[in-house]
Amino acid sequence: MTPADDRSDISISAKTSLRASRVAPFLAMDIMAAAAIRDKQGDGVIHMEIGQPSAPAPRRVIEAAQRALETGRLPYTDACGIPALRERIARSYRDTYGVAVAPDRIVVTTGSSAGFVLAFLSLFDAGARIAVPQPGYPAYRSILHALDLVPAPMILREDDRFAPTSEALRALHRREALSGILVMSPANPSGTVIEPARLAELCATARDLGLPFISDEIYHGLSYGIPAETALKFDPNAIVINSFSKTFCMTGWRIGWMVVPPWLVRPVERLAQNLYISAPYLSQVAALAAFDATEEAETIRLGYAANRALLLDAFPSLGLGRTHPADGAFYLYADVAGLTDDASSFCRRMLEQAGVAATPGLDFDAAEGGHHVRFSFAGSEGDCVEAVRRLKSWLG
Amino acid sequence: MTPADDRSDISISAKTSLRASRVAPFLAMDIMAAAAIRDKQGDGVIHMEIGQPSAPAPRRVIEAAQRALETGRLPYTDACGIPALRERIARSYRDTYGVAVAPDRIVVTTGSSAGFVLAFLSLFDAGARIAVPQPGYPAYRSILHALDLVPAPMILREDDRFAPTSEALRALHRREALSGILVMSPANPSGTVIEPARLAELCATARDLGLPFISDEIYHGLSYGIPAETALKFDPNAIVINSFSKTFCMTGWRIGWMVVPPWLVRPVERLAQNLYISAPYLSQVAALAAFDATEEAETIRLGYAANRALLLDAFPSLGLGRTHPADGAFYLYADVAGLTDDASSFCRRMLEQAGVAATPGLDFDAAEGGHHVRFSFAGSEGDCVEAVRRLKSWLG
Repeated sequence: MTPADDRSDISISAKTSLRASRVAPFLAMDIMAAAAIRDKQGDGVIHMEIGQPSAPAPRRVIEAAQRALETGRLPYTDACGIPALRERIARSYRDTYGVAVAPDRIVVTTGSSAGFVLAFLSLFDAGARIAVPQPGYPAYRSILHALDLVPAPMILREDDRFAPTSEALRALHRREALSGILVMSPANPSGTVIEPARLAELCATARDLGLPFISDEIYHGLSYGIPAETALKFDPNAIVINSFSKTFCMTGWRIGWMVVPPWLVRPVERLAQNLYISAPYLSQVAALAAFDATEEAETIRLGYAANRALLLDAFPSLGLGRTHPADGAFYLYADVAGLTDDASSFCRRMLEQAGVAATPGLDFDAAEGGHHVRFSFAGSEGDCVEAVRRLKSWLG
Repeated sequence: MTPADDRSDISISAKTSLRASRVAPFLAMDIMAAAAIRDKQGDGVIHMEIGQPSAPAPRRVIEAAQRALETGRLPYTDACGIPALRERIARSYRDTYGVAVAPDRIVVTTGSSAGFVLAFLSLFDAGARIAVPQPGYPAYRSILHALDLVPAPMILREDDRFAPTSEALRALHRREALSGILVMSPANPSGTVIEPARLAELCATARDLGLPFISDEIYHGLSYGIPAETALKFDPNAIVINSFSKTFCMTGWRIGWMVVPPWLVRPVERLAQNLYISAPYLSQVAALAAFDATEEAETIRLGYAANRALLLDAFPSLGLGRTHPADGAFYLYADVAGLTDDASSFCRRMLEQAGVAATPGLDFDAAEGGHHVRFSFAGSEGDCVEAVRRLKSWLG
């Protein structure tokens, strides 16, 4: 036996790239790993650290996958996805938003993660500065860094309901000479839904400034007040990124899609052919069935709405009352300044002492994240009740 | 209804990145799309254009997936993969090659495609030149281009059985100031298995030159003479990329893995967290069962061996006799100089007139590809027999 592990001579090539070194760890994933260890030890943890629905995927989705599995043949597909799925997704834009989108503008992707990589690579060259919301989904920044692009934080303000504004975009562009803008509604972690008139204005401003508009719409279908509007309604050239993960409880299936303008289809297709070959076959077949599972999806949304109400009711008395809007998605982003100025250590102690896993705000906001914590309410109602009980006992 | 498709104003942002423009289309995928159209029209096409096994995944793999599906809960996993799968993959290195690899050096990936992206991003910064075999898998070049890296072709020579040599590597390094080397054995499209002594020498040379050694081993398990040896035997710091796609007929499952040196685990994990979140859950669970399906895998390999013998016997009389070694993998890379100097048009005509889809050599070799065609023999024996019949009638 060759003891490969012991012969390691790291003197020669033990160096990683600069771009990899700029990629911060995803604290949510680290917390998830720590929580998994506690789970294994038999300490039941309430998981509020990642956006992972506790409900199973809809029955029709499972059944479609089962039927495909029986054949045993799950081949590569066209890089842009199975034609029937592209057509079905295109149709959903007409049905849901009243927007006409041609099926060949749909690119089926390996989760929204692939959508971001494909959008960034197809649109931007090294050094380009892209406006991203702060607080915001941390992978935006990390993917941009990995691809030698520069995230330019758009600071979201309470006065604006934590939505990006045209004025802020113009000011940022003057300072940073942007090459594009990325917007998310409903947002992670704030839950903010950008009101349609605001979104229209933002799209017009980006257009005026000549900036491609990338719209992350993965929490569409999960809102509790005004429904979210697609950016395609206001900018036919918007690059929309979406996924089956959240609305249809299909996180581990790794299946999503993009809508791209006609001139971007072929460049994205070439990149997808080479970087991904295709999205997982079974997930594509299953996703096709998701569109007929709207009733189950609605039941799940109602469950989130109940969880949200429960937490919004209980959190103030725990000192967790200053939360972002939470119009949509399934997060409460709580200001914990009254309890700590070190949310990371707070989250570690909360996991260890209270058995509640949540994500420190530094994942989402390098400036203000030190006193914020994100709680996901994508779990069951029982989990939310138990979390409140534990937090009450721990904090009280 | 908003006629989004008609309002497109491409004057503002209709420009793709330079790096995207450097990514060539994957001709094999284009031929696959053209062949799919013919199939739809009812013209039965013999598919020899891509490395897609016609056999289903092993029974145990399907059953493991079915069991997991019944729960309906397919969550994200740790970015590096399910621990049981990482352990099982690590064990396979001891069992198959007698090499000790710690499980935490295994990173489960969304196919080998993700492995290349993660290896390149974690090791190299923009402008770095990476030696890649020519002829070779086209996605190497394209992924490197997309990530602002520079492929440096190592020209493979008939005298060397189309294997890379230490001399060639040294000469290339003198000319190009390389930052790394990528080697594949068994190779696509040549089928060449690098003999163990040669591979050892190549590893030693790379080490001597201070170059990280990336070893694409996705066709391991598919050889018809000398078995392929893992680069880990000769360089414990080698970055190995592998996949379940070929050996276990799991292409559309999008599941593979990397073996990385200890110092590279954390950088790769961070990139994987952000760029992929995790590999598809169901495919991970199913892949775990693949290791117990060696009997089925061997039956499939024997089928390929029979197909290979059949084609090697029939091709010379068709003017397709000058093929690369085909020691492993499931391709015959045929020199068609006697028939044409435009393999792309030859392949189009072959598809239209003979109903046989194969891939023009320019996918693999910008210099000599104009007179080469790659035929995959991953289909059934019946397909190979029929392909020979059709080609005989078309070429004869």
